[in-house]
Amino acid sequence: MKQLVLGGARSGKSRHAEKLAEKSTKSVFYLATANAGDSEMSSRIALHQQQRPAHWQLIEEELFLAKALQKIDAIDHCILVDCLTLWVSNLLCHNNAQLLAEQKATLINMLPNLKSDIIFVSNEVGHGIVPMGELNRRFVDESGWLHQDLTTACDKVDFVMAGLPLSLK
Amino acid sequence: MKQLVLGGARSGKSRHAEKLAEKSTKSVFYLATANAGDSEMSSRIALHQQQRPAHWQLIEEELFLAKALQKIDAIDHCILVDCLTLWVSNLLCHNNAQLLAEQKATLINMLPNLKSDIIFVSNEVGHGIVPMGELNRRFVDESGWLHQDLTTACDKVDFVMAGLPLSLK
Amino acid sequence: MKQLVLGGARSGKSRHAEKLAEKSTKSVFYLATANAGDSEMSSRIALHQQQRPAHWQLIEEELFLAKALQKIDAIDHCILVDCLTLWVSNLLCHNNAQLLAEQKATLINMLPNLKSDIIFVSNEVGHGIVPMGELNRRFVDESGWLHQDLTTACDKVDFVMAGLPLSLK
Repeated sequence: MKQLVLGGARSGKSRHAEKLAEKSTKSVFYLATANAGDSEMSSRIALHQQQRPAHWQLIEEELFLAKALQKIDAIDHCILVDCLTLWVSNLLCHNNAQLLAEQKATLINMLPNLKSDIIFVSNEVGHGIVPMGELNRRFVDESGWLHQDLTTACDKVDFVMAGLPLSLK
Repeated sequence: MKQLVLGGARSGKSRHAEKLAEKSTKSVFYLATANAGDSEMSSRIALHQQQRPAHWQLIEEELFLAKALQKIDAIDHCILVDCLTLWVSNLLCHNNAQLLAEQKATLINMLPNLKSDIIFVSNEVGHGIVPMGELNRRFVDESGWLHQDLTTACDKVDFVMAGLPLSLK
Repeated sequence: MKQLVLGGARSGKSRHAEKLAEKSTKSVFYLATANAGDSEMSSRIALHQQQRPAHWQLIEEELFLAKALQKIDAIDHCILVDCLTLWVSNLLCHNNAQLLAEQKATLINMLPNLKSDIIFVSNEVGHGIVPMGELNRRFVDESGWLHQDLTTACDKVDFVMAGLPLSLK
């Protein structure tokens, strides 16, 4: 089972994804894409850590997501990827268009072959006005395209608003 | 009955909340949190006032929402609070983290004990890219957390898009 | 049948609207409101063109949408208008409040009398924080008001997220 949990900032999407993982009978791996670049980000990461069960195994990977998933893939594993938005942002900040395109294609192509249950978390970022700055617009574009590709590849899609999941697929 | 009406800017969320209040058989109190700080805001307030029934009682409270609710609480009252977004914004602009935390906790804790029907209106602000400025990010965080707490405390939650309510709870 | 397809940036809303048009047994007209002002916009337009059936007739109109619709209106036509957001933006950039108000009123009033099937595409832009700049706030206001008016006039409304349509009406 592959699932995508979408939602805005502070929508409760991570909490919802964690609840889905808590119900799993498989061994849970938490794959974090965050990069604690500054103190604001560090405190956001710390907050997330406090809310997770301590026995979950933590994997950290900022860029090579597909490879990291493949490494821990197994029929009795449940992998929670939190979150794709930061992964896209990390790849874009490398200022390397080809790397993002390659990594995304690899992820989408390998997804049907992975044996693990996977729960992806990602931010909806495209419901405001077109942002200032070409990088920001690129980020909105790439996030949106990724979400469209993922919904095709996933069995279930939830959109979380104010802590309440809305089933889209 | 406690309800939360969420929606984006110009989504028709206030209109939807007003329609809910119009159907109430109780005496309607309109609790406004707006502060007419400039002419743009004044004209937005005036526009809202034109659209409301004249016999509704108007209460204005920018900061101490829980106290204001308690003061008019009664079994035969229906209180329409428009809107929580401005209340959060007013508290944040006081630049007093403790005041916001206190006021929010007081509101959430007292809510189950209030005898009035209450309809809260609030803006979804977290579906765009992460905004510039720490205060803006704080505002998005606090709004999102408040909505999550409120959906737990409320009996019904609607998300309004283009004037059309979507029931989330 | 009049339909409105709403969605965020890169949500797949245009693709969804095109799929609706492809199912139509009528002659499809693609009414584009885009103005290729810079190279970024040109490449976005080119991308949309590649994805459309070549036999659809292309009409371009940046400002006088109602007139353009009336000109090609017929019982056996299906008109896909992509998108209203750019149309509002074009009218606002003319810095002529009266022109926008007139054009919008003309569109809304004539809509029930048009014999064609019409599919409108528009961007949800109001789910982020209140943007900087009076023109941006005006744009969010006008877009939201237009959507509310259109949902009243349309038979069906879909909100597309990550390529998945959610039926609102």
